[in-house]
Amino acid sequence: MADLLESSQPSDWRPLDPENTLYVEMESGRVVIELTPDFAPHHVSNIKALAREKYWDGLAVIRVNDNYVVQLADPNAENPDKKRKIKSAKETLAAEFDRMINSELPFNVLPDRDVYSSSVGFTNGFPVARDEKEGRTWLVHTYGTVSAGRDTDIDSGSGSELTAVIGHGPRQLDRNVTVVGRVRQGMELLSSLPRGDGNLGFYKEPEPALSIKSVRLASDVAENEQTHLEVLRTDTPLFSQLIEARRNRQEEWFHRPAGRIDIGNVPVPVRVTQGYPAQ
Amino acid sequence: MADLLESSQPSDWRPLDPENTLYVEMESGRVVIELTPDFAPHHVSNIKALAREKYWDGLAVIRVNDNYVVQLADPNAENPDKKRKIKSAKETLAAEFDRMINSELPFNVLPDRDVYSSSVGFTNGFPVARDEKEGRTWLVHTYGTVSAGRDTDIDSGSGSELTAVIGHGPRQLDRNVTVVGRVRQGMELLSSLPRGDGNLGFYKEPEPALSIKSVRLASDVAENEQTHLEVLRTDTPLFSQLIEARRNRQEEWFHRPAGRIDIGNVPVPVRVTQGYPAQ
Repeated sequence: MADLLESSQPSDWRPLDPENTLYVEMESGRVVIELTPDFAPHHVSNIKALAREKYWDGLAVIRVNDNYVVQLADPNAENPDKKRKIKSAKETLAAEFDRMINSELPFNVLPDRDVYSSSVGFTNGFPVARDEKEGRTWLVHTYGTVSAGRDTDIDSGSGSELTAVIGHGPRQLDRNVTVVGRVRQGMELLSSLPRGDGNLGFYKEPEPALSIKSVRLASDVAENEQTHLEVLRTDTPLFSQLIEARRNRQEEWFHRPAGRIDIGNVPVPVRVTQGYPAQ
Repeated sequence: MADLLESSQPSDWRPLDPENTLYVEMESGRVVIELTPDFAPHHVSNIKALAREKYWDGLAVIRVNDNYVVQLADPNAENPDKKRKIKSAKETLAAEFDRMINSELPFNVLPDRDVYSSSVGFTNGFPVARDEKEGRTWLVHTYGTVSAGRDTDIDSGSGSELTAVIGHGPRQLDRNVTVVGRVRQGMELLSSLPRGDGNLGFYKEPEPALSIKSVRLASDVAENEQTHLEVLRTDTPLFSQLIEARRNRQEEWFHRPAGRIDIGNVPVPVRVTQGYPAQ
């Protein structure tokens, strides 16, 4: 894979759009999330409004559930007096679990079957599944997927509670929750957090180390403090070669290449181009 | 799932065999590994010999590779003067990547397809795959799978380097490495470790916090210091019901049950029966 990336051209990469990139600033560093307006336009728009009203500043990671998710939210959400008020953003939004298949959305299909859907692949760097009969497509839950928490009512989420997958892809969540983006850098800052001591990995007591300093849209951060990342494009011959190299590992160590790959095992490479140092 | 476990009978559970249970004692607590002599008899036998000669005492977790594996090994393995000597155990063993399908081994097949093999299911509490044409079966790599590290030569492992999966099931490792067991308790002590700062998640400098105090076979530990665990049997109607409950989640929160399940998403419940406190 290193050889393939070495051979890449500038046109094989695309920079993250600062208007759709979120920086979660934690004690341990910065987590960079790429948002997906193509799949969750209303949630992404609301998340941007929440970031701009500094909704998350001083809130926390309230849940670290081993082999499942971390959750960023208001530790006082259940306390009407102490809970953080939403100002200009919306309190709830209609679910955006899937969308119509559209010829303007590239779909670079994986050659292998999927357990959960009729086909899987990539749309603009995001792992997706499709149901061709229904004409629907959706973002799938793999390591690093960021979703909007909700209550039982499917239209009760707003993007104010964000979860990120830190374990085996919990594909049972597909089309049950609105996926809003993907962690592109700093995943290890979330995945290595101490697991919560309560039910479902919630913390019984707030952990000071898990407080969120701030969440900002990249475009609202000074240029010299931005993390300049590029993501490998997934609609290129190079990416198809990369998938093939992962399906059939050629490294000498591999005795029996699998010949297949699960969507959760396809890496989407990211590189730092300038500015803020890599983690 | 909680309701199903509540309805379980004592016969739905089996205790771990102390002769095939390994305790890895770390600063943060105990990791309990169940070994699999049915699939890797020679490696399991050698791991028991290594534990009995206290091979791992004072060694360390030398690698924490995000979304992949942690590795327990000798930080000085490359230094002939300082490396830990193996006394009575074997230095290398022939690979035990897969084995013959045998009517004495139960196989409780999952009703859904698998990306990597013709069928997957459970044998005595361990996730396995099969190739019926070849008449072979093997333990698959999912979260918590423990394997024996090796060099490029497939017969170069001994069990002295142990890896545990801490991310999305790296199924490309199936039949490429000898699986020796599964973490049954304490997984979060491994998965939440700080990620290594070097290539492939290796630590550039040894981390004192990651030292291994000792590795012992449960049967060599005083009865009152043993962790008494039971694993839900996987060859029972109850386990089939549990799989069905996970394929089609009935909790009110789920809007659209998946109707399918990936082998990596099937939990094998474990309970503490007495003695050493649960983590």
